[in-house]
Amino acid sequence: MKVSSRGEVDPFIVMDVMAAASRAEAEGRRIIHMEIGQPGTPAPAAARAALARAMEEGPLGYTVGLGLPELRARIARLYGEWYDVDLNPERVVITPGSSGGFTLAFTSLFDTGARVGIGMPGYPSYKAILTALDLVPVRIETALENRLQPVPSDLPPDLDGLLVASPANPSGTMLDRAALVDLIEAARGQGAAFISDEIYHGVEYEKKAVSAVEITDEAYVINSFSKYFSMTGWRVGWMVVPENHIRRVERLVQNLFICAPHASQVVALAAMDATDELEANMVIYRRNRALMMEGLPKAGFTKIAPPDGAFYVYADVSDLTDDSRAFAAEILDKAGVAVTPGLDFDPARGHGTLRFSYARATSDIEEGLDRLARFMAAR
Amino acid sequence: MKVSSRGEVDPFIVMDVMAAASRAEAEGRRIIHMEIGQPGTPAPAAARAALARAMEEGPLGYTVGLGLPELRARIARLYGEWYDVDLNPERVVITPGSSGGFTLAFTSLFDTGARVGIGMPGYPSYKAILTALDLVPVRIETALENRLQPVPSDLPPDLDGLLVASPANPSGTMLDRAALVDLIEAARGQGAAFISDEIYHGVEYEKKAVSAVEITDEAYVINSFSKYFSMTGWRVGWMVVPENHIRRVERLVQNLFICAPHASQVVALAAMDATDELEANMVIYRRNRALMMEGLPKAGFTKIAPPDGAFYVYADVSDLTDDSRAFAAEILDKAGVAVTPGLDFDPARGHGTLRFSYARATSDIEEGLDRLARFMAAR
Repeated sequence: MKVSSRGEVDPFIVMDVMAAASRAEAEGRRIIHMEIGQPGTPAPAAARAALARAMEEGPLGYTVGLGLPELRARIARLYGEWYDVDLNPERVVITPGSSGGFTLAFTSLFDTGARVGIGMPGYPSYKAILTALDLVPVRIETALENRLQPVPSDLPPDLDGLLVASPANPSGTMLDRAALVDLIEAARGQGAAFISDEIYHGVEYEKKAVSAVEITDEAYVINSFSKYFSMTGWRVGWMVVPENHIRRVERLVQNLFICAPHASQVVALAAMDATDELEANMVIYRRNRALMMEGLPKAGFTKIAPPDGAFYVYADVSDLTDDSRAFAAEILDKAGVAVTPGLDFDPARGHGTLRFSYARATSDIEEGLDRLARFMAAR
Repeated sequence: MKVSSRGEVDPFIVMDVMAAASRAEAEGRRIIHMEIGQPGTPAPAAARAALARAMEEGPLGYTVGLGLPELRARIARLYGEWYDVDLNPERVVITPGSSGGFTLAFTSLFDTGARVGIGMPGYPSYKAILTALDLVPVRIETALENRLQPVPSDLPPDLDGLLVASPANPSGTMLDRAALVDLIEAARGQGAAFISDEIYHGVEYEKKAVSAVEITDEAYVINSFSKYFSMTGWRVGWMVVPENHIRRVERLVQNLFICAPHASQVVALAAMDATDELEANMVIYRRNRALMMEGLPKAGFTKIAPPDGAFYVYADVSDLTDDSRAFAAEILDKAGVAVTPGLDFDPARGHGTLRFSYARATSDIEEGLDRLARFMAAR
C-alpha cells in the first residue's frame, strides 16, 4: 500500500531519551525528568471540582464549533486583565490545544507550497505540522545576540507566513514590544500572514510578555490552557483571529474537529479564576528557575541565559560535545537525568545544545542538579 | 491579508436550521430536535465516576501519542468480543474523535491532489477535511437499489483512496460481508487505500455490522466513543492501522495532536465495561426506531427504509418538495421540529431528501412525530 510523503515527518529525538528512561525505570532506577515540557501539577482543584459537578448535571455533548460562549467571553476578559486590551469575544476560537490552533491557522491561511518562516531553534512540531499539510517550513536561523529570536533582517524574501513564539521554546526568551512590532511590520511588508504562538504567556519572570493582540488586529494569536493553567492533557486552547476570518475558521473547526472537548472547556473556564493555585505554581517555577541559574553553572553548564518565560534552560554545550544526542544518552545513563538534545529544536546547530526543563517539583530539580554536578565532576 | 483556497470549506446547511431553532427557543418556543446526530445521554455513570476518581489521583498530563496502553489493549479485546478477531493492540491508535482519525489517515496516506472516493449521500465533513488537506474528494453517486452504498461498478478509475461507512450516515444502511469484501478488493485492484468508517458500530438493529478488520489487515479502520459509548463531547476515538504504518501514524499523532484528551481516555476505558447502561441506551434507540418506522409514513413521509444501524431515517421527500432547505425551514417554522436538509449529505440529489435523527429521548420522538403528522395534515 502506498503512503504519502507529507506523512514522513521527523521523529522527536527526545523520544529515544524517554524510551530509555522508561526502560531504566522499569528496571527500578529512579530517573529525574528534565526532558518533559509539562507541569507536574494537575488542573486547579476548583476547576476539577467544576467538572465533577458538570458531569452530574448534563450530558456534555458537542459544544458549538467555536466553543462555549462563556469561555470565549472569559478569555476576552483575560485580554483586558493581562494586556489592557478590549477584545471582541467573537474573535476567540476555542481549539483542541494549541496543536489544533496551528492546524486551523495553517489551513485557513496557506495553500499547498506556501512558505512559512519559523525561527530556529523552535518547537519541533511547527515543521512537522507544516509538512503534513504540504506547506514549506522555511527555517530562520536566529542569532545569539538577538537572544535566539528572529529579527527583520533575518527574514528570507517571499514568505507567505511568519510564525514567532514569545516566550519561546526552547530558549525561554521573549520579544519585547518594539521587536514584535518590527516583525509584524516586516511580515506585513512582504504580504506574509503573522502567527504569534503565545502558549507560555503567564509563565513569566521579570516582566509581562507582550501579545500580538496589543499591536495588531490582523494576526492569528495561538494560546493554550496547557502551561500557565496547568492543563496539558486536557487538550484545550484558544486562538484570536481577525474579525473577517471568524466564519471561515468556524467552518474549519466544525469540520476538522467538531469542537474542543466539552469537559476540558468546563475545566478551563473554572481554571481561569483559580488565581491563587496558579500563582502558587508560579512560585515553584520561580524557585526552580533560581536553582537552575545557580546549579547549572556550578555543575559546569556555564553557557546559559536566564529565561524570560516558560520553564526551560537552553544550554550551549558545544564546548562539552559535538553530539548532543549521545551526550543526552550519556547523562541519562550515568546521572539518571533525562534531558532533551537540541537537535529536536535546531537540526543545524542543535548538536551543541541541550534543553533542561524545570517544570517539575522543586525536590526533583534539586536532586537533578546534584546528579548533574556529580556527573560533570566525574567526567 | 490573503487567505487559502483550501480553507474555503462549505458551511453545514443544517447550521441555518440550528440557528433558527435557537432563535425560536430564545423566544420561548419548544423545538423538537431531530436534526442533531448525537445521543441525549451522557457518558456512562461508571465512566464518569472513574474520571472523578482519576482527577483526584494524578495530574492527567499528556499521555503517550498512541494513547493509554490499557485503553489500546481493551479496544483490541473489543475486536475479539464483537467480531471474534484477534487484534494486535499495537495496531490501535487512540485519536481525538473520529475527526482526528480522518486527518491522521488522510495525511498518512495521501499527498496533495490525491483522489479519494466518498459515497453520496455521506457525512459532509469527509469532503471538507479532504479539501482542507488539499486532497480531491471524488463523489460517488450511490444507487437506491444498492441501499445508497457504493458497489465496485460505481467506482471511478484512478482513485488513490476509497472511504466507506457502514452503518452509513445519513442512510443507516450497512455493507454486508460480501459487499465489503467486494469494495476492498475493488480498491486494492486499482491501488487505492481503503478507509472504513465504523463510527456507528454497536448501534445496530437486525444484525451485527461487519468490520473491515475481519477482512483485511491493510485497511485504516476509524471508530469513536461518540455514538454507541455515548461520548460525543469527549472527543475520543480510535483507529486500527496496518502494522507497518504504526510508527508513521505515531509520529503524526505526536506532532498534530500530541495525544487525545487524557481525561476522555480514562472515561472511554471505563465506558467499555458499562454494558448494562449502554444496552439500556440501545433499548431506547430500538423503541425510537420503531416509532419512526410507524409514525413517519403515517405522517406522510412514505419513502423511507428501516435503517440497519445508527439513529437516522433518510427520507425521500422528492414528491413533497424540490427544495429540502426551504422544506426544513417550513417544518421548523410550522411544526417546531428541526430536521436536516439532505443537501448537506448529497449536493446533487439532496434537494429531495431529509434526515430525521431519533437519537434523543423517546418522549421527544413521540412529540416530534405528532407535530409532523399535524403539519403534514394541514399542508
